[in-house]
Amino acid sequence: MTSGENASRPGGRTARVRADVMAAVEAELAERGYDGLTIDGVAARSGVHRTTVYRRWRTVDGLLVDLLAMGADDNWTPAETGSLAGDLAELNREIRSALTVLPSVTVAVIAASFRTPDAAEALRRFWVDRYERSAVVVTRAVERGEIPAGTDAHRVLMLATAPLYHQLVLLRQPMSAKLATRYAHDAAEAAKVGILHG
Amino acid sequence: MTSGENASRPGGRTARVRADVMAAVEAELAERGYDGLTIDGVAARSGVHRTTVYRRWRTVDGLLVDLLAMGADDNWTPAETGSLAGDLAELNREIRSALTVLPSVTVAVIAASFRTPDAAEALRRFWVDRYERSAVVVTRAVERGEIPAGTDAHRVLMLATAPLYHQLVLLRQPMSAKLATRYAHDAAEAAKVGILHG
Repeated sequence: MTSGENASRPGGRTARVRADVMAAVEAELAERGYDGLTIDGVAARSGVHRTTVYRRWRTVDGLLVDLLAMGADDNWTPAETGSLAGDLAELNREIRSALTVLPSVTVAVIAASFRTPDAAEALRRFWVDRYERSAVVVTRAVERGEIPAGTDAHRVLMLATAPLYHQLVLLRQPMSAKLATRYAHDAAEAAKVGILHG
Repeated sequence: MTSGENASRPGGRTARVRADVMAAVEAELAERGYDGLTIDGVAARSGVHRTTVYRRWRTVDGLLVDLLAMGADDNWTPAETGSLAGDLAELNREIRSALTVLPSVTVAVIAASFRTPDAAEALRRFWVDRYERSAVVVTRAVERGEIPAGTDAHRVLMLATAPLYHQLVLLRQPMSAKLATRYAHDAAEAAKVGILHG
């Protein structure tokens, strides 16, 4: 935080409070899970007064929804490596890392999504946004002439990434970094040979 | 239930009680979810005395674990259609149906797996068993000469089925029967062209 970001700048204090509270939500969620998440715990960890947290976010679900909204607001874009296989492998490296880091905020949010419809809807919107942003890796591959025009970006992304979520989150089995890369390469090769047309 | 299956046959009454209780667990879980599942509710619905249910299964989690164990015990095998694409499409038809029927016992069990480690472990074992049984569709395709020897059965099955679980359960977006079949065909074609070698 630089001295340029201060309370006298419009939105400065509000943005800082939000960032502090969201960092505390992430930490509490990862450490204690949805059942252990409380407004008081988040307030104490963030150093923001509990009445401020109650006034602005109202409920634990309100905190979770805002955490995901903040993720959707950020300026994340997929890495550009020069090849479809490389771009997808980098995407899978990020996903595998988010799902296997201990404690995992992502897995905690997924668990919470089965508890409350608000978190489920916020997570759904977050992922729609991430997959939309990721589609550019397919567009770039078409532009480079690496894969046929008319390749179905959604199927490419799903074939590359779905095995990670399924195996790590639902099947609860480990997945090596090598296998995560392999699924990325499988999807890229399938696209190259023209299997994944629209 | 035929007259041959009666209490005088060893295991007959016990097996019948188990079947009645498990049917009640399925119905209660699908209707009320994990939070609404109670031993008393299951006993009332099954017509089995609550002390019997308490003595044998002890807890709600004990009921869930046995429901999944019963699924793993059954004689399910993947359909044999004559082609890898057909076999995988049939597998995906079953998975899509289980995940989209309302109410879905499968989705309720997945939700429960994020609440209790016992359910998570039972679900993990259930899926390990199902994927092991499903591997025969790849073995048969190799034997028919439809796909190269050395094709990685695990990757074929994951590429075909993971997009259904990911999109329907985690991303919470609908998936047409046509798209579910398409993922089956994508995986089969990728195997045919030799992308999915071990």
